[in-house]
Amino acid sequence: MAQAYMAEHMSGTAVFETVFRKLPQSRSYVMAAGLSDVVDFLETFQFRQADIDYLHGLRLFTEGFLQSLSAVRFTGDVWAVPEGTVVFPNEPIVQVIAPIAEAQLAETFVVNQIHLQSVIASKAARVVEAARGRMVVEFGARRAHGTDAALKVARASYLAGMAGTSNLLAAREYGIPAFGTMAHSFIQAFDNELDAFDAFARLYPGTTLLVDTYDPLRGVDHVIELVKHRERLVVAGVRLDSGDLGALSKATRAKLDAAGLNQIEIFASSGLDEYRIAALMNDGCPIDAFAVGTKLVVAQDAPALDMAYKLVEYDGVGRTKFSSDKVIYPGRKQVVRRLDHGVFAADTIGKPDEQLDGEPLLVPVMKNGRRLPQHDPDLPASRNWARQQIDRLPPQLRSLEATGWSYPVDISPGIARELERLRQAQQLG
Amino acid sequence: MAQAYMAEHMSGTAVFETVFRKLPQSRSYVMAAGLSDVVDFLETFQFRQADIDYLHGLRLFTEGFLQSLSAVRFTGDVWAVPEGTVVFPNEPIVQVIAPIAEAQLAETFVVNQIHLQSVIASKAARVVEAARGRMVVEFGARRAHGTDAALKVARASYLAGMAGTSNLLAAREYGIPAFGTMAHSFIQAFDNELDAFDAFARLYPGTTLLVDTYDPLRGVDHVIELVKHRERLVVAGVRLDSGDLGALSKATRAKLDAAGLNQIEIFASSGLDEYRIAALMNDGCPIDAFAVGTKLVVAQDAPALDMAYKLVEYDGVGRTKFSSDKVIYPGRKQVVRRLDHGVFAADTIGKPDEQLDGEPLLVPVMKNGRRLPQHDPDLPASRNWARQQIDRLPPQLRSLEATGWSYPVDISPGIARELERLRQAQQLG
Repeated sequence: MAQAYMAEHMSGTAVFETVFRKLPQSRSYVMAAGLSDVVDFLETFQFRQADIDYLHGLRLFTEGFLQSLSAVRFTGDVWAVPEGTVVFPNEPIVQVIAPIAEAQLAETFVVNQIHLQSVIASKAARVVEAARGRMVVEFGARRAHGTDAALKVARASYLAGMAGTSNLLAAREYGIPAFGTMAHSFIQAFDNELDAFDAFARLYPGTTLLVDTYDPLRGVDHVIELVKHRERLVVAGVRLDSGDLGALSKATRAKLDAAGLNQIEIFASSGLDEYRIAALMNDGCPIDAFAVGTKLVVAQDAPALDMAYKLVEYDGVGRTKFSSDKVIYPGRKQVVRRLDHGVFAADTIGKPDEQLDGEPLLVPVMKNGRRLPQHDPDLPASRNWARQQIDRLPPQLRSLEATGWSYPVDISPGIARELERLRQAQQLG
Repeated sequence: MAQAYMAEHMSGTAVFETVFRKLPQSRSYVMAAGLSDVVDFLETFQFRQADIDYLHGLRLFTEGFLQSLSAVRFTGDVWAVPEGTVVFPNEPIVQVIAPIAEAQLAETFVVNQIHLQSVIASKAARVVEAARGRMVVEFGARRAHGTDAALKVARASYLAGMAGTSNLLAAREYGIPAFGTMAHSFIQAFDNELDAFDAFARLYPGTTLLVDTYDPLRGVDHVIELVKHRERLVVAGVRLDSGDLGALSKATRAKLDAAGLNQIEIFASSGLDEYRIAALMNDGCPIDAFAVGTKLVVAQDAPALDMAYKLVEYDGVGRTKFSSDKVIYPGRKQVVRRLDHGVFAADTIGKPDEQLDGEPLLVPVMKNGRRLPQHDPDLPASRNWARQQIDRLPPQLRSLEATGWSYPVDISPGIARELERLRQAQQLG
């Protein structure tokens, strides 16, 4: 497409908007994430000689076009909602405003990162909500979809309020707290569990011991024996990773308390998601912290959004599309949000120059290809913003179960008029 | 754990096996994939100084341990089933045999890659099956989970029989055929569809034109107009990307045939998966090729397997685990498969030195940290192997719908005896 734009001398400014059209059944909002990686990418985007050599070999591209690629940089502007912002269908998350070929070339990376990180942040926010203030840690690197996802899942989960990750590389890359406990294999490698616990606790005072390799309650007995009878061993927690976590956590708490070890915390993992955690919390289980893996890191119940990167304006003219189920609202947009007593009440998707009541969600993040430092929050600041967003959600949206109620998002008169005008032009044309 | 093994002078050989325990409801087999990346990783595995500096800052590790990390390389052996092999629950896919710390450090990457690529290959094999020989192309990079997944999904899909990918980087990296068509945004950027088609078809003779930006059957009319009335324009196909693909493909075929354009093929995309494709095929739709995106690249109906990396042997002794629902079969294993008239009939999971009837599935792929060239097939060879595997599946497993029938996999007498011995030792211990 870039070559065709060049051949047609089409170098006008395009506006592309990254939006999703429908909420998955088990989501009542999406938490936007991934912008930081998009800005990094656009600031450094270029074709290397090896890339151009490969394209040359495909015999699809002219010499002139291939030569022009080596000079391509992203020179456009970007507007976006800050990471952690709660968004709804048809609201632009990232708006790329650039010469059409540049903007088109950015599509796959922009959608890939905003999609993944928003899918995960949206899931993680629900998991955090379900835990009602108890700590939740992301433990799923091995089952995330590839190495990039293993990093980005840790980042998006932390953005959405999780306490940290077991992925050391992500912890280092993003300054996220690192958590780790032993694996079953460590226990198994010793001839008995007590020796394994002893070795680990001597090396890591204050560690968490995994008690369910053979029999979880005997494992707890071993921890008690260790702490009571071996000098100077400090154990901060025990982890349950299988079976009926509700019953086991209660029995574990009872054993620890009876031994006077009230300070030892209980850590639970194994197949957890927001529904399991909510059920455990409703049952009053004495679990102090949750480790969440697979169902979070692949967003098991909603692994994808129908997110796309839509051309809405080219060369100053609003553009649309009328394929049966996928209408595009034409023209560059702004979204405004109204609050009622500190709670999100309704949004309007309008034109940037329309007078609309409410706070604008989209802010400028890049100008002429460079990031704008005033709109470049660090991860802790984005995490605070995400927390505030969740605190302002209507209670129907914070519920884990679908309530049948949708957050009201309407289209401004300006957008509606423009859509109607294009529809008529299309019917005549 | 690595530091604790060192502190305890535990440097014996461990055997870790990568297995999954349960098939997702919508899968009757798993196609193993990802081994090539695992071998590449293990051959080059090392800690860089920056890694060690970060670990130092965590204040969890001794100077002695951190210094030892700089010399860590993978020196072990690996046995595995070749990529493309069909496997069932509890069958080892990759077996890592190495000093315990090395083998433990490899865990996250090994599982991350085998899991992702096997999840995708298993889904892609079903999609290919549903298409009954019609071409299927992977089109989902933007919605794959991150940049690594975008590459690996293309690779695993091709391994499992898809014809190619729209991801140029993956095409280049793996030598996979690249496919691309125009996007709606290209059409929208022009003031009318016919001009957009004309520009694209002049530049790319034999291209496929996307006809549904405004009205699909008017789009087909525009293609016919272009081919009939503008000289020397060759269009090989039209693509439908929305609406009722069944009805639209039939109406499109009728229009093209009526215009004498029987040679123009119909390409369909939009929300496709194996079920949609099977329904279209059953309906006799004249679709010549399918492009499959989101539902394939996130494996929507089964985005994860309960795949783990289990210690089964340390220092010559079989190891197990008895947590309620997650028994590990102890000891290093081999899997043998019996065929009946060229069709897979039954597998047995046994010990490598047991006399068992059937073809062994696991072959040596690394020895002393180096790959074994005789067991290092290239991607086309693995793709052929995958094809043969599918051809040998019992018909119940090739069915897209669950038949309630499970492929028979049993445990050898040697494994059963060892498990019972460990269970008794545990109860006494």
